[in-house]
Amino acid sequence: MPLNVMVQIKLANRPGTLARVLTTVAEFGGNLGSIDLVSVSPNHKVRDLMIGLRDSGQIQPMLDKLSTLPDVQVLHVADRVLLSHRGGKIQVVPKRQISNREDLAMVYTPGVARVCEVIHQQPEYVYDLTMKGNTIAIVTDGSAVLGLGNLGPEAALPVMEGKAMLFKHFGEVNAVPLCLAVHGTEEIVAAVAAVAPAFGGINLEDIAAPKCFEIEERLSEMLDIPVFHDDQHGTAIVVLAGLINALKVTGRRMEGVRVVMSGAGAAGVAIAKMLPRAGVGDLVVCDRQGAIGPGRSLDVPSKRWLAGHTNREGRSGPLPEVLAGADVFIGVSGPGILGREDVLRMAPRPVVFALANPEPEVDPESVYDFAGVVATGRSDYPNQINNVLAFPGVFRGALDCHARCINEEMAMAAAQALAGSVRDEDMAPDNIIPSVFNPEVTPRVAKAVREAAAAAGVARKLPHVRESFEQ
Amino acid sequence: MPLNVMVQIKLANRPGTLARVLTTVAEFGGNLGSIDLVSVSPNHKVRDLMIGLRDSGQIQPMLDKLSTLPDVQVLHVADRVLLSHRGGKIQVVPKRQISNREDLAMVYTPGVARVCEVIHQQPEYVYDLTMKGNTIAIVTDGSAVLGLGNLGPEAALPVMEGKAMLFKHFGEVNAVPLCLAVHGTEEIVAAVAAVAPAFGGINLEDIAAPKCFEIEERLSEMLDIPVFHDDQHGTAIVVLAGLINALKVTGRRMEGVRVVMSGAGAAGVAIAKMLPRAGVGDLVVCDRQGAIGPGRSLDVPSKRWLAGHTNREGRSGPLPEVLAGADVFIGVSGPGILGREDVLRMAPRPVVFALANPEPEVDPESVYDFAGVVATGRSDYPNQINNVLAFPGVFRGALDCHARCINEEMAMAAAQALAGSVRDEDMAPDNIIPSVFNPEVTPRVAKAVREAAAAAGVARKLPHVRESFEQ
Repeated sequence: MPLNVMVQIKLANRPGTLARVLTTVAEFGGNLGSIDLVSVSPNHKVRDLMIGLRDSGQIQPMLDKLSTLPDVQVLHVADRVLLSHRGGKIQVVPKRQISNREDLAMVYTPGVARVCEVIHQQPEYVYDLTMKGNTIAIVTDGSAVLGLGNLGPEAALPVMEGKAMLFKHFGEVNAVPLCLAVHGTEEIVAAVAAVAPAFGGINLEDIAAPKCFEIEERLSEMLDIPVFHDDQHGTAIVVLAGLINALKVTGRRMEGVRVVMSGAGAAGVAIAKMLPRAGVGDLVVCDRQGAIGPGRSLDVPSKRWLAGHTNREGRSGPLPEVLAGADVFIGVSGPGILGREDVLRMAPRPVVFALANPEPEVDPESVYDFAGVVATGRSDYPNQINNVLAFPGVFRGALDCHARCINEEMAMAAAQALAGSVRDEDMAPDNIIPSVFNPEVTPRVAKAVREAAAAAGVARKLPHVRESFEQ
Repeated sequence: MPLNVMVQIKLANRPGTLARVLTTVAEFGGNLGSIDLVSVSPNHKVRDLMIGLRDSGQIQPMLDKLSTLPDVQVLHVADRVLLSHRGGKIQVVPKRQISNREDLAMVYTPGVARVCEVIHQQPEYVYDLTMKGNTIAIVTDGSAVLGLGNLGPEAALPVMEGKAMLFKHFGEVNAVPLCLAVHGTEEIVAAVAAVAPAFGGINLEDIAAPKCFEIEERLSEMLDIPVFHDDQHGTAIVVLAGLINALKVTGRRMEGVRVVMSGAGAAGVAIAKMLPRAGVGDLVVCDRQGAIGPGRSLDVPSKRWLAGHTNREGRSGPLPEVLAGADVFIGVSGPGILGREDVLRMAPRPVVFALANPEPEVDPESVYDFAGVVATGRSDYPNQINNVLAFPGVFRGALDCHARCINEEMAMAAAQALAGSVRDEDMAPDNIIPSVFNPEVTPRVAKAVREAAAAAGVARKLPHVRESFEQ
């Protein structure tokens, strides 16, 4: 595992001392970032060195070696990731100043009373006169945090805060983390429904399958604001966008391909529901027991749904068998479950989406020589399938039109807009999906979502607030 | 009622035109704020005039007159209070930039996984590595919004956002508005307990009495973070602070005064619980039926508590009767329930806190000539009893020491610190409480709260997060 550290050292104020330190860092493969001067005295300097190490095992040997250098003293070593989380990563700030009594009287009592009365009389004005129109809640119970499992609500909070940063940075959406101390479907539904009035949308996050399916369905029915489970729909949108372009690059048509998936969790089920709508006819989903289909006895409703709606040919057997001859593999399961030889038995120039993170279902390096397209969830390989390509634009678009929900049409429009943001002339086996830092992506996705919402009749036409007096 | 408007006018580009407009505004008592130039063409100028009117009834006659002026066209008139609420008053922003992949990897996946694991293994680090340590929720069900009553959660949101602005501006506390769609005691308790993990404190707000008492007590017992109902404890703290100084100014001692209160709602009950702890021995609380005491049949538990713990002498009768001979009147009830003649029957140089807002229990102008001290809830009279003097400092202090609760000792310390922030040499009948814009108030209150928490053993001693590696 790579490690980012801050090493604080005290150096004798003598030529060559820092050079010896830097040489030692380099010996251990350390990648130097900034070098800050903390303090200077006649005899000493104190400096902070930011050092990236490929292998966290190198930290102790490197520190030991540094300590043996003449005129060098290691004062402090800190983990930069932990440092960057101190005090939290988001804050709630006023949008205007409160400099005097007039400001206070306008935004708080007594002025605010008029605003309350306007909303009480015409509730739809809440979108115009409060944070609701541009604020969502990111809700988790901490039962499926990243790939780490059930860590609980407190340990999930750093992820939710990170997500809130991304919502603001990429989509200008205000997002509030809510980490729930309750874990049953009923209790989660009740808590989210209770807090809904202040929010224009709900993003469910890191909630374990299969309860996440029922929670999302029930909340979508109860609430008149969008409810979106990013681990399901966000992933499905980005996967479909990548697949549209991967098929283009390898000269295939959606209707003709045979797709095999690994993983029947939140992401797997959502992808399996979306692909047929996009035209895929032949789709088999595998879990740890192999192909999900007629021959299996299944106690989870979502898997029963898969058995009834996918695997037309009634295939059975373990993943590598089912995969033989397939055009497309989509993995949203676990690390290293396939080898080069398994992928070699797929159709020529296969499309391989190995999205388990951080370790993919198959080592990308082992299949590059013959695969048509390889995509992963990682930023250090080409074709990163990353949800941040979808969720900021999806919610931006939904909030812009005060949508009542995020429906299938909006999700499909988002996937197509995302695929379309790679220009034809740029499309290549190692460039089927845009970079997360491409500034055109979120506006494109947002526009497509707005238009789809309007076409489907779920965009609200809100009256302008009556701020004017009769003339 | 005063009214703040923005009037947009189109003026012929001719000398004297604007002067005629301003003269007309002045004729109707309009107080001019900024005059902005919106656009200029060869023949016309468009300007925004900010105008404050004492009496909202003047707006239409003023507009009618402006429309008759030659070369003047009124384009648009907007209510500045509504304007200032468009799009909401707060936002959620990242505390650091996300400029590149390294930033992304540090604050989100994969870096954040380490932070989640650290918190999962040692849950107390959630205070250090997330927003929890400096973030509270402001929770309401909208059942008692300002003095306006049960307006519901959406209409309460502008107040909660305003409060969030004040928390940040005066106390550097991040506050998240949560407006609940549920109204029963059980449901409110369940919702708040469910969302508690991400927050370092809960500020209950505008929840109707008597359910607010049970909700606050139950949540305080369940949660290991401070639960504070500002309408109760915030008001009680500021009232006690004002009373301490009012008694000083009028030469009285807490132990010797006879206090009569009007109002047995959230604020009244909390004040009645706090005053005896501060030394007040003789206290009678009145509701609409008069003195609460042994002779009354009472079905609300909080009023039964008052009957058992106040009114030692067993007084009965309507408020004006009970008030005769009293030293102190504290009104947290409704407008205009007392006249000059009622207050004249109190002890000489009485202390009168008429806090009903915006219209006090007795017209301050009618008692200034003989009262010792007069305080109201309004900013346009001296001695404004305003909760913003207390809540930012109380939560600042509680969060700083990761307090488990806000207990009686902390509330008492806050009141004393607040009283102490008026210097002896500045103390006067019209200066018993500091201005809300006095920058020393919040730090003083916070320090007192921290020290009281430590003394009471409810401040958490948190280990520093182990960001360092062994040397």
